[in-house]
Amino acid sequence: MPGGDMAKPLLGHQDMKNDPNFALAATSRTVGILGSGDFARSLSMRLVCSGFKVMIGSRNPKRNASLFPSAAEVTFQADAIKKSDIIFVAVFREHYTTLCDLSEELSGKILVDVSNNTEISHHKESNAEYLASLFPACTVVKGFNVISAWTLQSGPRDGNKQVFICSDNLEAKRAVIEIVHMLGFTPVDMGSLLSAREIENMPLRLLPAWKIPVFLALGLFLCFYTYNFIRQVLHPYIRDQKNKFYKMPVEVVNTTLPCVAYVMLSLVYLPGVLAAIFQLYHCTKYKRFPDWLDQWLQHRKQIGLLSFFCAALHAVYSLCLPMRRSHRYLLLSEAVKQVEKKADAWVEEEVWRMEIYISFGIMALGLLSLLAITSLPSISNALNWREFSFIQSTLGFVALVVSTLHTLTYGWTRAFDENQYKFYLPPTFTLTLLVPLAVILAKLFFHLPCMNQRLQRIRNGWERGRYVKFTLPRASGEFSSGESSSTV
Amino acid sequence: MPGGDMAKPLLGHQDMKNDPNFALAATSRTVGILGSGDFARSLSMRLVCSGFKVMIGSRNPKRNASLFPSAAEVTFQADAIKKSDIIFVAVFREHYTTLCDLSEELSGKILVDVSNNTEISHHKESNAEYLASLFPACTVVKGFNVISAWTLQSGPRDGNKQVFICSDNLEAKRAVIEIVHMLGFTPVDMGSLLSAREIENMPLRLLPAWKIPVFLALGLFLCFYTYNFIRQVLHPYIRDQKNKFYKMPVEVVNTTLPCVAYVMLSLVYLPGVLAAIFQLYHCTKYKRFPDWLDQWLQHRKQIGLLSFFCAALHAVYSLCLPMRRSHRYLLLSEAVKQVEKKADAWVEEEVWRMEIYISFGIMALGLLSLLAITSLPSISNALNWREFSFIQSTLGFVALVVSTLHTLTYGWTRAFDENQYKFYLPPTFTLTLLVPLAVILAKLFFHLPCMNQRLQRIRNGWERGRYVKFTLPRASGEFSSGESSSTV
Amino acid sequence: MPGGDMAKPLLGHQDMKNDPNFALAATSRTVGILGSGDFARSLSMRLVCSGFKVMIGSRNPKRNASLFPSAAEVTFQADAIKKSDIIFVAVFREHYTTLCDLSEELSGKILVDVSNNTEISHHKESNAEYLASLFPACTVVKGFNVISAWTLQSGPRDGNKQVFICSDNLEAKRAVIEIVHMLGFTPVDMGSLLSAREIENMPLRLLPAWKIPVFLALGLFLCFYTYNFIRQVLHPYIRDQKNKFYKMPVEVVNTTLPCVAYVMLSLVYLPGVLAAIFQLYHCTKYKRFPDWLDQWLQHRKQIGLLSFFCAALHAVYSLCLPMRRSHRYLLLSEAVKQVEKKADAWVEEEVWRMEIYISFGIMALGLLSLLAITSLPSISNALNWREFSFIQSTLGFVALVVSTLHTLTYGWTRAFDENQYKFYLPPTFTLTLLVPLAVILAKLFFHLPCMNQRLQRIRNGWERGRYVKFTLPRASGEFSSGESSSTV
Repeated sequence: MPGGDMAKPLLGHQDMKNDPNFALAATSRTVGILGSGDFARSLSMRLVCSGFKVMIGSRNPKRNASLFPSAAEVTFQADAIKKSDIIFVAVFREHYTTLCDLSEELSGKILVDVSNNTEISHHKESNAEYLASLFPACTVVKGFNVISAWTLQSGPRDGNKQVFICSDNLEAKRAVIEIVHMLGFTPVDMGSLLSAREIENMPLRLLPAWKIPVFLALGLFLCFYTYNFIRQVLHPYIRDQKNKFYKMPVEVVNTTLPCVAYVMLSLVYLPGVLAAIFQLYHCTKYKRFPDWLDQWLQHRKQIGLLSFFCAALHAVYSLCLPMRRSHRYLLLSEAVKQVEKKADAWVEEEVWRMEIYISFGIMALGLLSLLAITSLPSISNALNWREFSFIQSTLGFVALVVSTLHTLTYGWTRAFDENQYKFYLPPTFTLTLLVPLAVILAKLFFHLPCMNQRLQRIRNGWERGRYVKFTLPRASGEFSSGESSSTV
Repeated sequence: MPGGDMAKPLLGHQDMKNDPNFALAATSRTVGILGSGDFARSLSMRLVCSGFKVMIGSRNPKRNASLFPSAAEVTFQADAIKKSDIIFVAVFREHYTTLCDLSEELSGKILVDVSNNTEISHHKESNAEYLASLFPACTVVKGFNVISAWTLQSGPRDGNKQVFICSDNLEAKRAVIEIVHMLGFTPVDMGSLLSAREIENMPLRLLPAWKIPVFLALGLFLCFYTYNFIRQVLHPYIRDQKNKFYKMPVEVVNTTLPCVAYVMLSLVYLPGVLAAIFQLYHCTKYKRFPDWLDQWLQHRKQIGLLSFFCAALHAVYSLCLPMRRSHRYLLLSEAVKQVEKKADAWVEEEVWRMEIYISFGIMALGLLSLLAITSLPSISNALNWREFSFIQSTLGFVALVVSTLHTLTYGWTRAFDENQYKFYLPPTFTLTLLVPLAVILAKLFFHLPCMNQRLQRIRNGWERGRYVKFTLPRASGEFSSGESSSTV
Repeated sequence: MPGGDMAKPLLGHQDMKNDPNFALAATSRTVGILGSGDFARSLSMRLVCSGFKVMIGSRNPKRNASLFPSAAEVTFQADAIKKSDIIFVAVFREHYTTLCDLSEELSGKILVDVSNNTEISHHKESNAEYLASLFPACTVVKGFNVISAWTLQSGPRDGNKQVFICSDNLEAKRAVIEIVHMLGFTPVDMGSLLSAREIENMPLRLLPAWKIPVFLALGLFLCFYTYNFIRQVLHPYIRDQKNKFYKMPVEVVNTTLPCVAYVMLSLVYLPGVLAAIFQLYHCTKYKRFPDWLDQWLQHRKQIGLLSFFCAALHAVYSLCLPMRRSHRYLLLSEAVKQVEKKADAWVEEEVWRMEIYISFGIMALGLLSLLAITSLPSISNALNWREFSFIQSTLGFVALVVSTLHTLTYGWTRAFDENQYKFYLPPTFTLTLLVPLAVILAKLFFHLPCMNQRLQRIRNGWERGRYVKFTLPRASGEFSSGESSSTV
């Protein structure tokens, strides 16, 4: 990528020894590695393959030489350090102090800290900051810790693995970023060495963004399952001594899943409504949302995907219903009754109810699957902001409305049927309707011309107190208004 | 990434003040921003985090200082411009003229136009070109307009957002491309400043490639729905006064969706057939296809994905059929009849018909789902051309053939059954067969040895008139033939 | 990206003619192309769009000028070569020798070999090596062959197409890598020119990683289909002259697919078990696995995805069962019998069996779909190692256990029922249980504290013979132990 020093050996018209860039041109391709563990070995292999000259610093070069690719030079530590400007420190944090004897040789070099911890925020300061404190004459760059020895060996062909980099020295960072590029990875600049803690915690994280949404889904599932179990299994058993326990694995689950999916979907759109209320109340968009709302806004994607997962499971469970033995047995006994009664079983209302709610259910599932697909990183990256918000917010809201219609037609008139109130508990669907209906009504309210206008004004930067000051210059086109309004 | 100026401060052996690169080395990390809207604020935050020194130019530095990260220096406009070579103009187009007072200070600088419009092709010339015309002594680079303030803040960790860049000055473009890299985005070079119009229209587009295919699908759906409604609901109502209106939400939709899916799938392969006919007729591949064919060829992916979507919905609808009340009631009344007749209901032909067409249907859906998955950007990027064309064109054609078998076995002998011609309208499946059968026959015709050979020759660059001129040197291996044949 | 030569024309304070970088700064943006085929034309178009000055070298510039974009200069070959440092050789391998007259002009230039072959490993040496042997005074870089003319024209907006680059000269490679970047593609450095053979074979490959897994799946399908056919169709026909051939397209397939899916899933986890046994047996992790095990370990992803595909098809087939005519007819005849018997058909055990195994089946499918989704490149790239291994190995193993429960509850007590042994063949599900149960038991065995500890020690680099030598320094924190243990 660099044009400056790149083509000199090719053009070859200048005296290289006098060129101040030459020293770099020659040494920038030499990197040192201290350590001889798996990571050091995989790294050396990859560096050699990408055209770097690699100097391995070892206390016992003869013994360890066989562990490294033959193109890498295994030598004594001091020697390896002397011959390279950038040195990878592939050593455990606990052994950083053993390098102190070499501080003189290391002085002025770039040290790349590739270490990881075994626990999140294990030490007070990050490994990289600790290394920097031990060697104040060196420039420390944090990086490569998110890459496993396996990825280093198997190469970047399986996809662009991101390498997070940070350092207090911009030049050193750039040099390491170039190495990242040359090795075929994608560098991500994380700023100053303070970010090292964050970078060191990265490989230890286990889906942090999913924790709250998953526990939320599990909690909702447990609550609704218990409620449905009481209504569908316990009630007939206690009242009529009817054994309906066979309903537990499939039927009760299948009435619970749509509740979870539906409530979760409404929870995707609720924080947006709360944020709008917050902005309307405070008449400004510059006041920070409370932390819980901020967190909620950032977890919408995960909540939505879990909602889709539950909806998809609900679809599969529903489709399985007619396959079951219990369905067949009930059908047969109904057939026997039918033959005795000789009356037509056809109930027009029941037929219409089911045709319509199945129809709405499939539509909602189809819309949700579109939302889920556009949440895939490779697709959402290809969308511009308008397209993304059209799909996620407009289509998503339509999905919420269609789900509501699905729930309402499923419920039909049952909410007003006394027999449905088992143990005085209302039918489950009436409970699930609360949040979604509130969200839908609030959204409609915000779309009233007067509210919509006010909200738009606030989102364009308008504030109550500054009303006069800001709207006048905007009309007259003075510069101050140009400054106050964003371009995006 | 740059090697030349990068390591100098580290090596530090030369007199920096005399080095012509030094001025740049020091200032390239300083960027200016004019404007104090959302975008300016988010941009300054991101620049500061990536190690840049940021100068905010403001008319009222004291008032606005609190809006920016403390690491950014908020100063007067002229001052900010003086101290930086690259200046982001985060100001509305309407206020560009307010910068004219500063033209002297701006002279020789790189201006980055980050503005957006509110309508597609709103102004005669792009904002960037307008800015360039106002400041002829500056170099204008268009870029960053596709990035939202939100993305700037939340960082590139969510995926590589592409930043489209264009400029008439290659050096300025490179400098901005480097900033894009440093901020963690992916630059895409769009060429000269003329492309600014295209870049400015990008964030305003709403899935342009999907418009025609979606309307096509909706149109086909409406036509087929009406046709099926007449045959399945209206005909029994008018002829026999039978109320079959309950079929409208599910059953009529479920006979309409496969028609749409099947015709759309054939429309994916029809333009390829037309293109081959066009090439055979004109005996050259160098004649441009007519515009409509070109458009059609470019929308094949979207048409195919919509076809898969309809096919998947058709599968879900079909699987829902036995779950419905109407199905159960019909089954019960049939059971009653059965008991009275005491004859076995088993019809071997009907059983086989259904087993076979369900089988073909699942196979077709399986193949289409493979096609849909390989259309995901992250997967299609990992395939080479041969693999992509094997899946999309060979497997896709197999899917079309299996769908045809599905349709034919579904139809069975109904096309020849007079009772099926309701209101003299032929069964729907016979209508849908027209285009797919034409495509399949044409494809088979092109695979006849004589046609295939001719087509291959044309696709390798052969033309009728130049027959003698081109085939001879090819055999003798002269250079001219090496030139005339492509390497890919 | 390069900072060195970039801003000079902008700052403009030095005498450019005396600057040794100037020659490059001016010429690096000029590239030559030899050839006038499709690829040459598309490449020239793209280069022009990205701001390069393009010189087309042709024997007959006048005739060919019309084929190229007007911004490209079409001239005589020698002239084009003279004016550019980097020359794309877009000529067939067979015609490389025709360039020999120009060797003097070409001397010292960078030649980019973009050629492809028509067969894998067609020639003894790669095209690029052959070119390098013909022009020893040139630097040859291999690259761009994986990009089609179509991709060059349609641009990189459809996604980051990777361009694989190799060369023996690092500077030349960097120069070409920069061009790749400027054209909007993603360069992947493949090392020395020896890799050219591998790069040239890339576009000819047809899903090599899928071949063995697909044939494995097809083989398993055939075996299990035959076995099930004998039990479900042939046995009733021969023993009772019952015609059950209608079961062939759906029911037999539907008992075969889960067998394939289940065995394939266990084959994903078997090689890991074998590798652990291998390591425990040899008491080291540094001994290479035998080739077949290595191959198997690398195909786990494909085997797992095929397992999911079969499981998904099995789900669709199962859901189709109650839709079929045969199902309806059987139900009707059962209803008739029922009416005659007047006994309740309800069998509590059968009901529970089915409810439970359907339940487990859906759970297994849900888990497998999570595994499949996280196998998408764009998602797996966003996961860190811990997350990826949690999903693929922990959740995957749970899916295997749930599948086993699905199989066991499906089988229920049939394994001990003599009537199920048709032709003395045991029920299919008992056969499929062998490998998965072995895997599960082995995994549980490795989780016994004593085995787990030993395995962990081996995976941290412990070896039997070196026991004393390695564990002591580790405790005392000496450097040698820091070296011997990896950081990742």
